[in-house]
Amino acid sequence: MTEIATVVDDYIAMWNEADDGARREIIARTWTDDATYIDPLMSGTGPDGIGAMVAAARQQFPGHTFRLTMGPDAHNDRVRFAWRLVADAGPVAAGVDFATVAADGRLQAVTGFLEG
Amino acid sequence: MTEIATVVDDYIAMWNEADDGARREIIARTWTDDATYIDPLMSGTGPDGIGAMVAAARQQFPGHTFRLTMGPDAHNDRVRFAWRLVADAGPVAAGVDFATVAADGRLQAVTGFLEG
Repeated sequence: MTEIATVVDDYIAMWNEADDGARREIIARTWTDDATYIDPLMSGTGPDGIGAMVAAARQQFPGHTFRLTMGPDAHNDRVRFAWRLVADAGPVAAGVDFATVAADGRLQAVTGFLEG
Repeated sequence: MTEIATVVDDYIAMWNEADDGARREIIARTWTDDATYIDPLMSGTGPDGIGAMVAAARQQFPGHTFRLTMGPDAHNDRVRFAWRLVADAGPVAAGVDFATVAADGRLQAVTGFLEG
């Protein structure tokens, strides 16, 4: 079983990965096959759907980097953590993600909320 | 469909309701029949299981009151909000709850996290 801290680090790395092939590898080890993601702006289902969603988001925010700012705070099969989206000029967005984790430690359902 | 703000207010009222019968009525209109609740300290399944969990928690914290301190912040079928548990002497605990909401507006799955 993958440690939750590793899974969350990989989750952040997924958003920051510029290379499509490398991102697919991160997604395969981080998300279950039936995984879902949803936040106020976008959503994706399954590794392919989530990969396409991240690729679209990266086009929308070129040169930006996601950073973990709180957590992971986990109990049972649940986890939460906070993040910031940072550009050269400084932070541009922040949020909190809440997830349900599968028995093998991978992410099964992630819900994102935006701060501010 | 019940408004999310009403459902969250009822959820807080459930924790604060001293009367078992009144609490059952609140639970019936606030949670689906297949509802689940889980936090680091307790869990409950279905209206009866959640009712028994709340009754046990109230015995553990007599005279304490839950108050909503942030939100509800909702999008799609998801919601988050923050709360404090307050005693006469002041706040004794705080947390954030994340929930999935059913099509009829009632709570289907709530996960609680503790702050600090």
